[in-house]
Amino acid sequence: MKPISLALLTAGFMLANTNALAQQAATDKKPEMAPTVDRAKILVAPGVFGNFSTYKIRPDYYKISNAERKGAAAEVLAVVEKHKDKVIVDAYLTRGFEAQSDFFLRVHSYDMAATQAFLVDFRATRFGMYSDVTEQLVGMTKALNYITKDKSPDLNAGLTSATYQGDAPRYAFMIPVKKNAEWWNLTDAQRLKEIETHTLPTLGNLVNVKRKLYHSTGLDDTDFITYFETADLAAFNSLMLALAKVPENKYHVRWGSPTVMGTIQTFENVVRILSISN
Amino acid sequence: MKPISLALLTAGFMLANTNALAQQAATDKKPEMAPTVDRAKILVAPGVFGNFSTYKIRPDYYKISNAERKGAAAEVLAVVEKHKDKVIVDAYLTRGFEAQSDFFLRVHSYDMAATQAFLVDFRATRFGMYSDVTEQLVGMTKALNYITKDKSPDLNAGLTSATYQGDAPRYAFMIPVKKNAEWWNLTDAQRLKEIETHTLPTLGNLVNVKRKLYHSTGLDDTDFITYFETADLAAFNSLMLALAKVPENKYHVRWGSPTVMGTIQTFENVVRILSISN
Amino acid sequence: MKPISLALLTAGFMLANTNALAQQAATDKKPEMAPTVDRAKILVAPGVFGNFSTYKIRPDYYKISNAERKGAAAEVLAVVEKHKDKVIVDAYLTRGFEAQSDFFLRVHSYDMAATQAFLVDFRATRFGMYSDVTEQLVGMTKALNYITKDKSPDLNAGLTSATYQGDAPRYAFMIPVKKNAEWWNLTDAQRLKEIETHTLPTLGNLVNVKRKLYHSTGLDDTDFITYFETADLAAFNSLMLALAKVPENKYHVRWGSPTVMGTIQTFENVVRILSISN
Amino acid sequence: MKPISLALLTAGFMLANTNALAQQAATDKKPEMAPTVDRAKILVAPGVFGNFSTYKIRPDYYKISNAERKGAAAEVLAVVEKHKDKVIVDAYLTRGFEAQSDFFLRVHSYDMAATQAFLVDFRATRFGMYSDVTEQLVGMTKALNYITKDKSPDLNAGLTSATYQGDAPRYAFMIPVKKNAEWWNLTDAQRLKEIETHTLPTLGNLVNVKRKLYHSTGLDDTDFITYFETADLAAFNSLMLALAKVPENKYHVRWGSPTVMGTIQTFENVVRILSISN
Amino acid sequence: MKPISLALLTAGFMLANTNALAQQAATDKKPEMAPTVDRAKILVAPGVFGNFSTYKIRPDYYKISNAERKGAAAEVLAVVEKHKDKVIVDAYLTRGFEAQSDFFLRVHSYDMAATQAFLVDFRATRFGMYSDVTEQLVGMTKALNYITKDKSPDLNAGLTSATYQGDAPRYAFMIPVKKNAEWWNLTDAQRLKEIETHTLPTLGNLVNVKRKLYHSTGLDDTDFITYFETADLAAFNSLMLALAKVPENKYHVRWGSPTVMGTIQTFENVVRILSISN
Repeated sequence: MKPISLALLTAGFMLANTNALAQQAATDKKPEMAPTVDRAKILVAPGVFGNFSTYKIRPDYYKISNAERKGAAAEVLAVVEKHKDKVIVDAYLTRGFEAQSDFFLRVHSYDMAATQAFLVDFRATRFGMYSDVTEQLVGMTKALNYITKDKSPDLNAGLTSATYQGDAPRYAFMIPVKKNAEWWNLTDAQRLKEIETHTLPTLGNLVNVKRKLYHSTGLDDTDFITYFETADLAAFNSLMLALAKVPENKYHVRWGSPTVMGTIQTFENVVRILSISN
Repeated sequence: MKPISLALLTAGFMLANTNALAQQAATDKKPEMAPTVDRAKILVAPGVFGNFSTYKIRPDYYKISNAERKGAAAEVLAVVEKHKDKVIVDAYLTRGFEAQSDFFLRVHSYDMAATQAFLVDFRATRFGMYSDVTEQLVGMTKALNYITKDKSPDLNAGLTSATYQGDAPRYAFMIPVKKNAEWWNLTDAQRLKEIETHTLPTLGNLVNVKRKLYHSTGLDDTDFITYFETADLAAFNSLMLALAKVPENKYHVRWGSPTVMGTIQTFENVVRILSISN
Repeated sequence: MKPISLALLTAGFMLANTNALAQQAATDKKPEMAPTVDRAKILVAPGVFGNFSTYKIRPDYYKISNAERKGAAAEVLAVVEKHKDKVIVDAYLTRGFEAQSDFFLRVHSYDMAATQAFLVDFRATRFGMYSDVTEQLVGMTKALNYITKDKSPDLNAGLTSATYQGDAPRYAFMIPVKKNAEWWNLTDAQRLKEIETHTLPTLGNLVNVKRKLYHSTGLDDTDFITYFETADLAAFNSLMLALAKVPENKYHVRWGSPTVMGTIQTFENVVRILSISN
Repeated sequence: MKPISLALLTAGFMLANTNALAQQAATDKKPEMAPTVDRAKILVAPGVFGNFSTYKIRPDYYKISNAERKGAAAEVLAVVEKHKDKVIVDAYLTRGFEAQSDFFLRVHSYDMAATQAFLVDFRATRFGMYSDVTEQLVGMTKALNYITKDKSPDLNAGLTSATYQGDAPRYAFMIPVKKNAEWWNLTDAQRLKEIETHTLPTLGNLVNVKRKLYHSTGLDDTDFITYFETADLAAFNSLMLALAKVPENKYHVRWGSPTVMGTIQTFENVVRILSISN
Repeated sequence: MKPISLALLTAGFMLANTNALAQQAATDKKPEMAPTVDRAKILVAPGVFGNFSTYKIRPDYYKISNAERKGAAAEVLAVVEKHKDKVIVDAYLTRGFEAQSDFFLRVHSYDMAATQAFLVDFRATRFGMYSDVTEQLVGMTKALNYITKDKSPDLNAGLTSATYQGDAPRYAFMIPVKKNAEWWNLTDAQRLKEIETHTLPTLGNLVNVKRKLYHSTGLDDTDFITYFETADLAAFNSLMLALAKVPENKYHVRWGSPTVMGTIQTFENVVRILSISN
């Protein structure tokens, strides 16, 4: 196995015969502030890049030998290990829930190029080579915009005091959200009011559904990527119905499409399960 | 044949070299309340998960030997047998009716992960490996929302007193329904009124069309999955026209797309019919 | 050649190891009223099922030997012969007119399961196996709804008195039509008025364009399948422009998509033409 | 090379074993009025059929031997030669401009079945067999509808007096146009006024952009196919901006999708250029 | 390696057996004004053609030998070298950010046919042959339309005085924009006002996001191609949010679809990175 070095990926070294390219951009600087990744911190920090990708195994994967497929998980884990200082990877099994994918990945980093380096390496593994990417969304985390201590103290207290009390989540959902021009042309005060109306009926579900928000305007063809984890699908359905019943829903031009549902798994398990055939 | 064990699928066991993953979710709990499946009960209970998937056979299936294809049905039935305590499977032949599929499956369970475990095993069979999933929708059953004894006693009586009197159904339809933000922003009373208007003209078809409703908001890119069985296609067409002619129809953003029509078959028959070639 | 027997297709015989399936629907009844098909009668009768499918030949068809392709037409005709008591088949060559297909089939029967049995057998022939289904629409014929002797006597007289006087039609068109919720929420009287307005300017084209209507609401993702035959493409274009210029057009959410145009051919000719290569 | 004979394609000869088909339509008449094609005349006559098709070469074309690919152009030209009494063919190279195609063809004839016969023969050549059709639109030419000497004398004079004065055109564009029901429900006088408003600002571009219009309502999923040739892309962009800025634009439901741009080439050159690989 | 000569591509030489084609357009003139390309000048000049194309590597690329893939970069660079007098090429790595592509190219020239010649040659390389084009957009640069010294002096001063002060950009975005008929039917003064409103809140991001605009009306199914470079993804997100919050956004019918994000790389690096596998 010869994984691509991060240096090759992010550095634009010029060989003699490429001088003619007069390359416009220098890419040889690695951002110096990128800290080693700490899972507990990166999952709550603002300014973190989130990258969601869904994959479908090509049928010819099952035509290579069982032996080769048995080695697939170890090869993937080695790539995860190699990049562990830069990226955090979560894996989910979607086969049986989604037509467009068999699994999906969520990758966090402080540097989007580091995420790319990991994903390029992953795609160069045997398992990655037999996986077609079917959806790819990027976003970043930010501090709360609307329901802050200053702007909306009561709701902020509600949001911050409630904690998840359910069983360990077994299911995750990734749902993109895009809003129309009317939404973005509202005043800040008007949007705050809509978000307050949206937040109130969902406080009750903080105990049984975990949520995380990524901002994507301009970075991708969506404004937000919403991510959920739960052990209770009925509670999740109730939460989503509550969100459908507020006026903010009228500003949605995309809510889902796709809605991606998976079971939360180790990456190793995802690879092993999808590598088995008769 | 080495089917994937349910344990491997639902348990997130960590091998030494995966510790680095710092897996966020523990998935090692099997829900303890999941009862053994009783077909008569599960088809009428609330809180049941319904999973609909359509499949198209890849052309290269017909290039493997006749002998291999002859064994396909037995292999599939063994997977059904293995999971029979957890899931109920219905199969339908769509070839000749649909461009996007050759057959579809309806799977019921009390635990969506058990449904996934079955479908992953099915896809690992020879027949499943040569089948591309072309649509996949998930939902769950609930108690009646609107036409209850309390809220709408007359219509409730009409709904509950009528029973199917036609010949054994030969055809099934799976039709997703999604409603717009205006619908969900109506008051409960307004929605009840629309559903009453929708229910009245359809009571007459209870004798010749069976119906079943699944709720999907947030679980998938649809709000409902409607399922029908009939022996009388003209009666079914009349029922659907009656539903088109009520104001509720104005709130639909998806009604079909796809409409999936199949003949009701044993799973074995579906596999056998689709495994024959010259 | 071992075509699939109709018995296997429509009968749900249970083998020992499938008892566990607890199959919900009995499919072992063949409808007893299905008469032997008489082309002259079935093309004018109400209650007849129409099935339209378009096909694209896969490129690898032309990699099998010329000898094998030469036998393709006879094999297809044998399937037509086998089912001739149940179904009537018309074939059209679309190559050169359509990007999504090379040919299309129109199948009529009194029993949709018989149509399925034929199409399943067709797909099991060499030619059928190398044909990808790219569109599939089902509908049924009904007695006139609006322009009846009672409701609209003058237009009814116009419709029934005019007969096609052109050359033998060389071209056929299949055009799906779907109407919006506003249309279906009009009163019967309002819809009658719109249909009268629609009918009047088209009476003149009865002499040079043949038409046939199939109803599909609920059976498929369209409300109607309209079918035309003509020898005069300019006359057909004029007819369609007349239909575009009436208010009814404002209620269309689908009119075409696809519009399928083909030359009217024998099925044998379609197979032979598409089986030739250098 | 055994090209399909026109007789086989357009004549519905019945072999013994096809009598059972009871073919509805006789197709054995060749229209008697079809004249031999004269390029100068057919490009300005009304009642001419225009057929536009775009093609993408499949990657496996480049896996056959260079020798085979070298013979491709001659084989294609032989088919053109064979049909030269019936059809006129223009070819355009789109690779580098379009994602969906590598080349496109424009075929003119007085008989659409003759166009089909040519295209079927073309698809049976080596080059045609490795080309996937990705778009196909049909239409016909008509005499001017609106800007006639009678209805709009000044604009008609402007249209007919201006002539193309630019360099020999190097680029061609094919752009479909579809109008909504509101447009078609305008009165003739209203549509005339809109077309006058549309024509005036475009007179100035008659000197640097050639235009040709095909009518397609009912024949295909578009109302018009607009075709342009120019040596001056900036002038063409200006012309299209002028057309965007008139009220008629508000009635468009399709304008492009696709916009197909190609360089004007000999058919031989198109085949030769696309047949080269390392 | 036998690259296609520019002469063959742009010159329409007629061989004996193609005289029958009566080719309508002479293509044998090379525009005489095309200067040798100077990167510094072409990136700021009006009247320059910009061509954006995205590519996805086909999986079988990784089945050819490592040795063959190792030579891919040199072969591509030779093509760049051959065309360096006519075109400037920029390359970007999108794998890990986009589902529909692995890399994208931006090509500038003074003659669109020269761009085509380069891209045809590129597609004939080993790497190009294994790359499927998934998106292709063409446009051209123009002098400022609205925020000129005359029409909007203050904003013009703001635009021209600010310069990029960030780190060397590491990321590029290509985002198509299409406006509706209402936009194009505004008066020039109304559009100027909207563009002024759009420009003001974005001046602040001139220091951390580079921008470039291409006009495409009629040349492609978009009105504009907007191109950005940045080292600061959060700043880019802020810029795009500012653009979402102005009334001009209400006139968008396309903004993205796709949004293409890549890291800025040398072309050699792109080829090398995508040529590695285990």
